[in-house]
Amino acid sequence: MAKTKKQPRPKAETPKGFRDYFGAEVTQRSAMLQAIAAVYHRYGFDALESSAVETVQALGKFLPDVDRPNEGVFAWQEFDERDRGDWLALRYDLTAPLARVYAQHRNDLPMPYRRYAMGPVWRNEKPGPGRFRQFYQCDADTVGTASMAADAEICAMLSDTLEAVGIARGDYVIRINNRKVLNGVMEVAGVLDPSEPENFAQERGIVLRAIDKLDRLGPGGVRALLGDGRKDESGDFTAGAGLGDAQAEIVMGFMQARRDTGAETVARLRELVQGSAMGEDGVAELQEIADLLAAQGYGPDRIIIDPSVVRGLGYYTGPVYEAELTFEILDEKGRKRQFGSVAGGGRYDDLVKRFTGQAVPATGVSIGVDRLLAALREKGRITSVAQGPVVVTVMDRDRMADYQAMVAELRNAGIRAEVYLGNPKNFGNQLKYADRRNSPVAIIEGGDEKDRGVVQIKDLILGAQIAENATLEEWKERPSQFEVPRDQMLAKVREILALHGTGAN
Amino acid sequence: MAKTKKQPRPKAETPKGFRDYFGAEVTQRSAMLQAIAAVYHRYGFDALESSAVETVQALGKFLPDVDRPNEGVFAWQEFDERDRGDWLALRYDLTAPLARVYAQHRNDLPMPYRRYAMGPVWRNEKPGPGRFRQFYQCDADTVGTASMAADAEICAMLSDTLEAVGIARGDYVIRINNRKVLNGVMEVAGVLDPSEPENFAQERGIVLRAIDKLDRLGPGGVRALLGDGRKDESGDFTAGAGLGDAQAEIVMGFMQARRDTGAETVARLRELVQGSAMGEDGVAELQEIADLLAAQGYGPDRIIIDPSVVRGLGYYTGPVYEAELTFEILDEKGRKRQFGSVAGGGRYDDLVKRFTGQAVPATGVSIGVDRLLAALREKGRITSVAQGPVVVTVMDRDRMADYQAMVAELRNAGIRAEVYLGNPKNFGNQLKYADRRNSPVAIIEGGDEKDRGVVQIKDLILGAQIAENATLEEWKERPSQFEVPRDQMLAKVREILALHGTGAN
Repeated sequence: MAKTKKQPRPKAETPKGFRDYFGAEVTQRSAMLQAIAAVYHRYGFDALESSAVETVQALGKFLPDVDRPNEGVFAWQEFDERDRGDWLALRYDLTAPLARVYAQHRNDLPMPYRRYAMGPVWRNEKPGPGRFRQFYQCDADTVGTASMAADAEICAMLSDTLEAVGIARGDYVIRINNRKVLNGVMEVAGVLDPSEPENFAQERGIVLRAIDKLDRLGPGGVRALLGDGRKDESGDFTAGAGLGDAQAEIVMGFMQARRDTGAETVARLRELVQGSAMGEDGVAELQEIADLLAAQGYGPDRIIIDPSVVRGLGYYTGPVYEAELTFEILDEKGRKRQFGSVAGGGRYDDLVKRFTGQAVPATGVSIGVDRLLAALREKGRITSVAQGPVVVTVMDRDRMADYQAMVAELRNAGIRAEVYLGNPKNFGNQLKYADRRNSPVAIIEGGDEKDRGVVQIKDLILGAQIAENATLEEWKERPSQFEVPRDQMLAKVREILALHGTGAN
Repeated sequence: MAKTKKQPRPKAETPKGFRDYFGAEVTQRSAMLQAIAAVYHRYGFDALESSAVETVQALGKFLPDVDRPNEGVFAWQEFDERDRGDWLALRYDLTAPLARVYAQHRNDLPMPYRRYAMGPVWRNEKPGPGRFRQFYQCDADTVGTASMAADAEICAMLSDTLEAVGIARGDYVIRINNRKVLNGVMEVAGVLDPSEPENFAQERGIVLRAIDKLDRLGPGGVRALLGDGRKDESGDFTAGAGLGDAQAEIVMGFMQARRDTGAETVARLRELVQGSAMGEDGVAELQEIADLLAAQGYGPDRIIIDPSVVRGLGYYTGPVYEAELTFEILDEKGRKRQFGSVAGGGRYDDLVKRFTGQAVPATGVSIGVDRLLAALREKGRITSVAQGPVVVTVMDRDRMADYQAMVAELRNAGIRAEVYLGNPKNFGNQLKYADRRNSPVAIIEGGDEKDRGVVQIKDLILGAQIAENATLEEWKERPSQFEVPRDQMLAKVREILALHGTGAN
């Protein structure tokens, strides 16, 4: 057998745009997903988990940046026994897979079908600072009803959810708009001709992607994208929608149609769409949602009508909504800015129809869980340092069984605990390890202690506090190490943990 | 702008070998992952979540079936701005990514590093009945210690974990072996020459994959694979290791070296490896793990030494272990068989070295969560039917706000509840919907009830019981529908839920 060539060492690196999450980053995300799922569940939504992999044709092409390589998805071709098979891809959101699931299983699902789903999605985008190519979404959707009550319910639930995970009322706002209103405005302005649906869809796409960038580019940037195009800071040129000045101004007017109250905004929109059946239909839908939410007490302190919200995705057909955090943070350059969007969604009545040919109305929301976590960290609502385990040190390698009996006793009492498993020769290293683990307590049982039937228990939290703040006097008065009989070890550890309020875990 | 060609309808299908999970399937898996993580956490393991995507070179090639297309992984090439970039792939397990993570972040991680991880992994295998290409694993590993105490700890923790998720003691057994013992046996038998490491590794691979199939193929099948090879039922031929009869018999003898007690098995293995330093080392390691576990009370009712366990993966270097469920189930053809393996792992001292050039010993276990769930369902420990929400029916479309106030009241009391959002015209459809949703209670408020200030509350669980079992007399005596004043709705719903023991959710 020929000797195989020696391989060069692989690089220990995540692929570009991916990252690893450690300890509290993982458990906090998991806790947030559970908290969100609990609200969704209470609203009657059922769990669904589809696989990460879908056929490219099932996913369809709805991403905002369709000009990117592979159209924004990670895709590959199946290898079949004798030929190449289907193109497969990682899901880019949880909505496209839902449409496929509903079309596939519709005879077995309740109608309407309320479902929630959570998990990573993947985007084959140019990675940037804070922009990752895998991130978590947590979605809720109602499939099979055209009722605006479904959209209103999703908006109310989104509000409840944000508060359930720790975003205070006043720190967020949910903005609602309707794609039909935008279409109506464009129709009235003669920007687009709905009797040519193909062109209509494509140009409308350029217009709404332009509006969707209002936050980032400001009115001037959007105006440029509605017209001839825009050169960004790096010199890259993005082609515009090619609207004439008059037409572009009408779209700008729509985008800035928000008034002081919902009723005034609706009235202004009604003026703008006059003569377009589709536009009037959209305004009526907005009105209906606003009425339903008002009747349930979701007022403008939580949910408002705002025509500048359009959402970038191509598949929305009616109401669209977005949750934005309104508090300010400092960006990388130290400038104050609003935190921005953490969730969004809308009605997409044609996604299931792609598969079945039959119209199946649907609406739903997606929460960007990683952004929401980042927001809570910014606000200091959660910290990234997790409590470490009690560490039982190893003084005598041959008595490993004794040390393991100690941790077993602690664990059986619900206390997180571990034996030091590194090289026990250097005791200092063991305490450094406990420190690095953020351990509250270390336990020491050398030969002498063993003979006398006692153990040493070090309160590491108190020890650190004393080392940092105490005078010599205080140091002497407040010992952080205690000798107790072996059979009182558990009680003493419990006492120390209770003292620091760190609980059983 | 050119008209785009009309696309044919996409098929509403998961890709081959993938599936969707609904409702309780999802929440039960999530609950199991949390239960496992709680045990891992209590043992001092920290959470880690790496991304699903790794570079192909970081993952390496360690899957058992290396002759499959794409070598068992889903892989694709990155598209770089002007050229093709790195090959990326979906992770096929959680161990290879851990080695990469440890090599990349080792200066920031505690030493030793205990971590747990959970999530889906992907295998590009031929799908079969019950075999899926995406499945969940939940792993715990200790990196950076050569101590057998680490291996013993993992085995003890695996035992605790199985019992924590509902596998009773006696329904499982954890088998331990050591790859060094197998190597020693082969060395003594003159099967392989360790001074030619390349050939040694390759042929050893064929031998251990043969032994790993003992469960499936029986001793005769393994014997054939050690020799010339084996034709399977479909006529496909698998090449063998090409051992002579005498040599093959020695390997068979090793595989069947298990005796009544651990001590006797160790003694038998010691005879078999006499003269091989590596083999004797392996036997001493087995002995040490067995002693540590015995001292902690993990006896042969939970953990045994069994030389027939070798594990298929290529990267193990010392102890290997496997958890098997010992109860019988009926297979697709109605034949009784043992449920089989649900978890496995071992020591892999060279995986991190691939990246760093420096030896970093490590050991860990992977639990096959989907198989474990299937086992609990087989045993009837969990059922797949989840409690549905209280359904508030819609008698008068214009009073949607009233109905939403009702569900809000129920939800605020922690009760899962929803308004019917389908077309309300046909009331029978609303009750059919509640039935399909497995709802415990339906609430009805028509115009008449509204005027009288009351609601109708249907106990759907009792209703179903009566419909199924009751005589006409009983039917009359035990009404399942109650009229109560509107302000007593919540109390009555609570009462009914408590009656059926379904709790607040």
